[in-house]
Amino acid sequence: MRAIELTRRGFFERAALAAGFWAATSPAHALTDISNPRLFTFIGGRAGGWEVVSTKALAGELLPSVSHIDVIQGTLTPTPAGAGWILRGVTSNERYVTRDQKTQLVEKQQPLGRPTATQMALILIRKSAKWWALTQDERRALFQEQSKHVPIGLKYLPAIARRLHHCRDLAEGQPFDFVTQFDYAKADEPEFDKMLVALRATPEWEFVEREVDLRSVRVAK
Amino acid sequence: MRAIELTRRGFFERAALAAGFWAATSPAHALTDISNPRLFTFIGGRAGGWEVVSTKALAGELLPSVSHIDVIQGTLTPTPAGAGWILRGVTSNERYVTRDQKTQLVEKQQPLGRPTATQMALILIRKSAKWWALTQDERRALFQEQSKHVPIGLKYLPAIARRLHHCRDLAEGQPFDFVTQFDYAKADEPEFDKMLVALRATPEWEFVEREVDLRSVRVAK
Repeated sequence: MRAIELTRRGFFERAALAAGFWAATSPAHALTDISNPRLFTFIGGRAGGWEVVSTKALAGELLPSVSHIDVIQGTLTPTPAGAGWILRGVTSNERYVTRDQKTQLVEKQQPLGRPTATQMALILIRKSAKWWALTQDERRALFQEQSKHVPIGLKYLPAIARRLHHCRDLAEGQPFDFVTQFDYAKADEPEFDKMLVALRATPEWEFVEREVDLRSVRVAK
Repeated sequence: MRAIELTRRGFFERAALAAGFWAATSPAHALTDISNPRLFTFIGGRAGGWEVVSTKALAGELLPSVSHIDVIQGTLTPTPAGAGWILRGVTSNERYVTRDQKTQLVEKQQPLGRPTATQMALILIRKSAKWWALTQDERRALFQEQSKHVPIGLKYLPAIARRLHHCRDLAEGQPFDFVTQFDYAKADEPEFDKMLVALRATPEWEFVEREVDLRSVRVAK
């Protein structure tokens, strides 16, 4: 395709010629470079609001070991040089939930950040190319009828709070497709573990090719 | 939530303290900053592979007027100062198509860039907050049963080639949710227009709050 063959250098040369014309009135920056309000950045390093207590790889490679995690709404520019890892994801519209399930979720679910929720887990998931090549009806059947993903999750509400972030469609390649952030009270940790055991036994999880489970506790202010 | 309250300045101060430890071995850059291979950048300016012949707003605001368009696979850093507008989007998994429809699409559809396809259209769409608040089953019913989006599109294959780009879940806020790029021979333009008339009359289009229709012709090499 002609347009795709265009070199970057060629574009810049022509853009430079055009710059005099556009510079004064160009609204290009107004149309782009505005951070998506649904963007979250997860930073593993040596300092942060959450102290890591365990890091496990259930499938695929582990992440580099870090002692602390921070969760930032928005982005960080430039990338902090001292971080062990940085993950980004956006909250988005739901991809499989039905109206009936949504009604139940809205009734029961709690937001992240309750004062009693001193435990934070990040579950990092990458699904296989085979999953992404499925059509919507096939993925929905696996997620809903065969795996009962939402009914399993509903059983643990309101104790477990959850926010799902999509990483797959960001411009920058990401090592995971999803980052799900959970928080809960210390006493509810066994329930959280039970939920993970149930989900990991479903047909949906046969498409999980990388999974890292990070647990942390809130750092006292 | 503690982590979200963290200021950027606080993070950088701590990151700087940690930098000595991490600098030598940090794989943070390996985990991020890799351009998504499914990313495309659309640049409107005074030069490019396609010469604009018309720009129409069907709903909402028009884009700034430009004479040419370039389509680049990947990203451009830094943003070229001379551009009138820059849009970005990623190709992704299909959100509504069924296996049966996918089989028909794979059989009939042609890739962008055929030598005879001298006409290029970009249809830029933003859907309303109401659309995005619908659940998957509601959006699917509107898209499939009520609007027959895929059967309408199938009627115009293989003459019209198409590639859909998702913009909504990028980290940088985008003025549109979707950029769809089409190309076709000059003789097929009336067919392309018929397809748009049919789609714009569907219940799905009641959720379109901004739509810009850009037509262009390939610049002779």
